[in-house]
Amino acid sequence: MREAPGMASEFKVIRRVEFSDTDMAGIMHFSMFFRFMETAEHAFFRSLGFSVAMRMTDPAVGWPRVHASCDFKAPLRFEDEVEIHLRVIEKKSKALTYEFRFTKVNDSGRTLAAIGRITAVCVSKTADGKMSATAIPAEFADQVEVSPSSESA
Amino acid sequence: MREAPGMASEFKVIRRVEFSDTDMAGIMHFSMFFRFMETAEHAFFRSLGFSVAMRMTDPAVGWPRVHASCDFKAPLRFEDEVEIHLRVIEKKSKALTYEFRFTKVNDSGRTLAAIGRITAVCVSKTADGKMSATAIPAEFADQVEVSPSSESA
Amino acid sequence: MREAPGMASEFKVIRRVEFSDTDMAGIMHFSMFFRFMETAEHAFFRSLGFSVAMRMTDPAVGWPRVHASCDFKAPLRFEDEVEIHLRVIEKKSKALTYEFRFTKVNDSGRTLAAIGRITAVCVSKTADGKMSATAIPAEFADQVEVSPSSESA
Amino acid sequence: MREAPGMASEFKVIRRVEFSDTDMAGIMHFSMFFRFMETAEHAFFRSLGFSVAMRMTDPAVGWPRVHASCDFKAPLRFEDEVEIHLRVIEKKSKALTYEFRFTKVNDSGRTLAAIGRITAVCVSKTADGKMSATAIPAEFADQVEVSPSSESA
Repeated sequence: MREAPGMASEFKVIRRVEFSDTDMAGIMHFSMFFRFMETAEHAFFRSLGFSVAMRMTDPAVGWPRVHASCDFKAPLRFEDEVEIHLRVIEKKSKALTYEFRFTKVNDSGRTLAAIGRITAVCVSKTADGKMSATAIPAEFADQVEVSPSSESA
Repeated sequence: MREAPGMASEFKVIRRVEFSDTDMAGIMHFSMFFRFMETAEHAFFRSLGFSVAMRMTDPAVGWPRVHASCDFKAPLRFEDEVEIHLRVIEKKSKALTYEFRFTKVNDSGRTLAAIGRITAVCVSKTADGKMSATAIPAEFADQVEVSPSSESA
Repeated sequence: MREAPGMASEFKVIRRVEFSDTDMAGIMHFSMFFRFMETAEHAFFRSLGFSVAMRMTDPAVGWPRVHASCDFKAPLRFEDEVEIHLRVIEKKSKALTYEFRFTKVNDSGRTLAAIGRITAVCVSKTADGKMSATAIPAEFADQVEVSPSSESA
Repeated sequence: MREAPGMASEFKVIRRVEFSDTDMAGIMHFSMFFRFMETAEHAFFRSLGFSVAMRMTDPAVGWPRVHASCDFKAPLRFEDEVEIHLRVIEKKSKALTYEFRFTKVNDSGRTLAAIGRITAVCVSKTADGKMSATAIPAEFADQVEVSPSSESA
């Protein structure tokens, strides 16, 4: 899924829906889709040798969200296995936007369950302890590019 | 906040951020904003004499989400009190869309923390046990109207 | 519920079960009882003029748990109102143990739903950034005493 | 980990601590240990060809908890990998009790983080829709036995 040496724009993880992810309607609670997106984002960071905590960069940075959204297509149920396909769809000097496609995978095939988006801003702490938007550290930014795929265009 | 006898288009609840709502960044986790939206939605239902479970209507209906989004403006922290202002911004025969304004309220004033949206579809169970979109029960629909406010237009 | 001027050993809060607290079995997930216990504990702190974060004491202290348990008697369901009755049942120089009685309250009466316990240790940060057990700050300890009630003995 | 053909008394799963599992103290929230125990329990069921939902047994059964407890020894942090070692420590006709050992595993070795217990009762729905304790279905009970290990005795 890498388009050039050292460049990454996509990532996939598989996750199983747990009992505590469900609600009394018998399906995964809609707020859990946002946690699953974050799981995929953090695994993407690790795949590049970074932690989202990024204490190893100088300065240390964090990634608060400025936007999150999700369109729900089909419910997920307990013990369903869902593929979360992350794609970088926008890269700015201080922010990244990801798209996440949730696909339920089982013996009877693949079902699109949801499509989500998160925009996260790179921040560091200023001298007075406040968070301020900052340029994405080069050692990370140099490895990430916008996905050439037009799958969701 | 009612524009006509028996008609409702807005609702406000206050909620305090709990310790387990926070994450290691020291702020409320972004997924919790979606749970707080749902809290306000369900309190709105109760204010009209209904439960979102709506076992008292015939047929019994549920309200799965087809869309949820949130724009984050300022972080919320442990023990912050946040006002969640729900407004009905779209009413269709089988779906409602709400806007939620999160305002942090304390002695130093009011701070807009986030603006979110949820679109929920009214469904009932068909004979074969599947969920199918259905008209909002009249006893509920007759009490709900789109907010005339243009606050967020 | 106070036995002496300025002394506190009990506290009660009411909380409503939310949709996202339930699971596919249609009842509140058992892990949520522990979050509700914490809600009561933190409200108890606030009732004495403190935050569990306790940045106003010197040194600043935290309260990690060393033990938590719960015996479940009856299920809680969506929109149930539950009274959480906290009692201090042990007070040591560096630790407090609470008991929590969950009682479902509605028109048909009161039903004991669960009895839980938490032991929390008072810690402060040492020079090297580690957490170390420390004496409960006097301004807080002086206000708290073991409940004389033998209700659960 | 099986002591006899078809007999199981132990199971291990590895899980990584996620960002949303942490709280503002920078460690995994204590309530999450109980969710991780459940994750291990359900994986144990799947390893025997069953789902905890157990719709494939006749009658269909569920496993509500009557007791849960945890002793916390060391904190878990974001991205820690933790081994959860389930052992069956009591088997009754209508209930099972599990012990769970949480061990943090990394390059510098293994650290015991927590020891928990859950007692779950096997229930089925009676004609009037209530849950009633029932004998564990033989096809499942015949595969489960108490762990001979005296590790925690």
